[in-house]
Amino acid sequence: MLLQETIGKIGALDRGAMEQAQKHLDSLIKPPGSLGILEEIAVRLAGITGVPRPSIEDKVIIVMGGDHGVVEEGVSIAPQEVTAQMLPAILSGVAGVGVLAKHAGARLIVVDVGVAGPVCPGVQKRKIRPGTGNIAAGPAMNRAEAVKALEVGIEVANSEIDRGAGLLAIGDMGIGNTTPSSAILAVLGGYKAMEVAGRGTLINNEVMERKIRTIELALAVNQPDPDDGLDVLAKVGGLEIAGLAGVILAAAARRVPVLIDGFITTASALIASKLHPGARQFMIASHLSQEQGHRLMLKLLGLTPVIHLKMRLGEGTGAALAMHLIEASIKIMHEMASFQDAGVSDLDEEKIMKL
Amino acid sequence: MLLQETIGKIGALDRGAMEQAQKHLDSLIKPPGSLGILEEIAVRLAGITGVPRPSIEDKVIIVMGGDHGVVEEGVSIAPQEVTAQMLPAILSGVAGVGVLAKHAGARLIVVDVGVAGPVCPGVQKRKIRPGTGNIAAGPAMNRAEAVKALEVGIEVANSEIDRGAGLLAIGDMGIGNTTPSSAILAVLGGYKAMEVAGRGTLINNEVMERKIRTIELALAVNQPDPDDGLDVLAKVGGLEIAGLAGVILAAAARRVPVLIDGFITTASALIASKLHPGARQFMIASHLSQEQGHRLMLKLLGLTPVIHLKMRLGEGTGAALAMHLIEASIKIMHEMASFQDAGVSDLDEEKIMKL
Repeated sequence: MLLQETIGKIGALDRGAMEQAQKHLDSLIKPPGSLGILEEIAVRLAGITGVPRPSIEDKVIIVMGGDHGVVEEGVSIAPQEVTAQMLPAILSGVAGVGVLAKHAGARLIVVDVGVAGPVCPGVQKRKIRPGTGNIAAGPAMNRAEAVKALEVGIEVANSEIDRGAGLLAIGDMGIGNTTPSSAILAVLGGYKAMEVAGRGTLINNEVMERKIRTIELALAVNQPDPDDGLDVLAKVGGLEIAGLAGVILAAAARRVPVLIDGFITTASALIASKLHPGARQFMIASHLSQEQGHRLMLKLLGLTPVIHLKMRLGEGTGAALAMHLIEASIKIMHEMASFQDAGVSDLDEEKIMKL
Repeated sequence: MLLQETIGKIGALDRGAMEQAQKHLDSLIKPPGSLGILEEIAVRLAGITGVPRPSIEDKVIIVMGGDHGVVEEGVSIAPQEVTAQMLPAILSGVAGVGVLAKHAGARLIVVDVGVAGPVCPGVQKRKIRPGTGNIAAGPAMNRAEAVKALEVGIEVANSEIDRGAGLLAIGDMGIGNTTPSSAILAVLGGYKAMEVAGRGTLINNEVMERKIRTIELALAVNQPDPDDGLDVLAKVGGLEIAGLAGVILAAAARRVPVLIDGFITTASALIASKLHPGARQFMIASHLSQEQGHRLMLKLLGLTPVIHLKMRLGEGTGAALAMHLIEASIKIMHEMASFQDAGVSDLDEEKIMKL
């Protein structure tokens, strides 16, 4: 119900606001287009919000946690209890994303959508089930659970947007979650397991081969339908992946830009985009992960990452770093002078027309 | 004298501090190395400053302005007076780098090393000569002038470091300065003019061909010696390019990290690196410019850009944006908890050793 309603509200970018933003950019004291993707972001923010020169006051990073039955297959070297152990560290600001959220001046929300054990105070308790089933042996969850997990994300995002959030970023915490993310990419992109499996948290060759076999098994056992995003999510996805896809759908429905992070959150973006192709326009890519399949995911979505730090931590760390760049594009729109204001000789229009 | 003295002070990175920084990074609650280049930057900052976990309070962007006699050849579509006109806009914070310096929380210093006309109040007046000679017809300047311009940069940087600057960034303003920068790359990298000439400020095909011929002429007429950085600088360089190379040399001598910007400042970095190869270790690359030769320059220097925004504005805009990332790496070192502190299960050491 909430899911369908949210998807139904996703509209197109506001072309009028985008044209006004572009016109303003072209009047500023710089060669036209010379701020590159910073200008493209400014134009897209106009299209998303419907305001030619929007302001963003409140920034929120939403981290969702969930566990994965597939760890039974030995696809990760970190033990499952790390998922729950990391949540207090994230909340108190001493994990990677906690440090970078403070640096970005962003609020940080942590949600349990499906952690295997109990979680610490301060985490929003929205557990759908204590971890997914092992996708190498059956579905991650049933279809109703996938819808519920998506709706957790929608509700959390709506609540933050109601509080004033003007820019969202998403992050993940879930030991083993590169395996379902790889499976989602394989199904939606038509890739083989070996093309999408990456080394995750520094796994060795033996674990790597096991991971590839596990992804192959997950696809063979579950036969997810690539034309049905909900089927893919339920069969080979994850609870935090579902929740984050819900955040993206709500952001798109409410016309709030949402920063995508690395491999796991981009798997969520693939699901959201399958549920409504228009959701893609409300996403902004942040960094390019070291995880090999990330480039393939971004290509499928048509998104261009702007930070190249070879990170592979997840948690929303890359998206947190990109907030500074989003704000830079907004400040360019508000604070830069025009050629006329500044008394600077404009470029010769005729010469530009000849290009 | 000052130049030789400064070059003589450039030492090696502090390996002890780097080892301590690496050890600290490996104790933090993340898979080892998972913050990628952010970790490499943290280690390099330790090596530069000699402090395993340095702090940076005061950040300064130094923009140097200079004009170029080569504009006589019609290699730019913007008129020469734009160089002087842009300086008040930069100072008052309404040009690209002014907006981004404020966003970064950095001080902004503007220096006239060789603008053709008078400059506005607030600009440091260190003019060596009013613009270079036309490099297509003779040298840009004589060797003594090149030394003086380098020393302006050294003095300005020393003065800012004395005031407490712990991180420098460099930016350029000079109509026509992609042509000498391309010539420097051609000489020092052994490239042909057509491999290094880019479209600068949106020049058309006709101007592009003229630019390539002009670079060829500049190399043929001046015969710069690729083994003599000062000869290359004097014959086919620029006054602001010299000043910025001086800033880099002073930063290296004083063990302060310096952020390189786009095509012009990286030409300065090539000169600085030719004058002392060890200067390279004190440079940090910021963004990859849209200007085609930039990638070749960074490759020559062995530097990896981390921001990919397809910008081609110069002024220090890319370097200003990267300051946030440098500070992020510092905050990671100071604020992230260790596995022990946070009570998070460490990764199995044996499994990591097997990798």
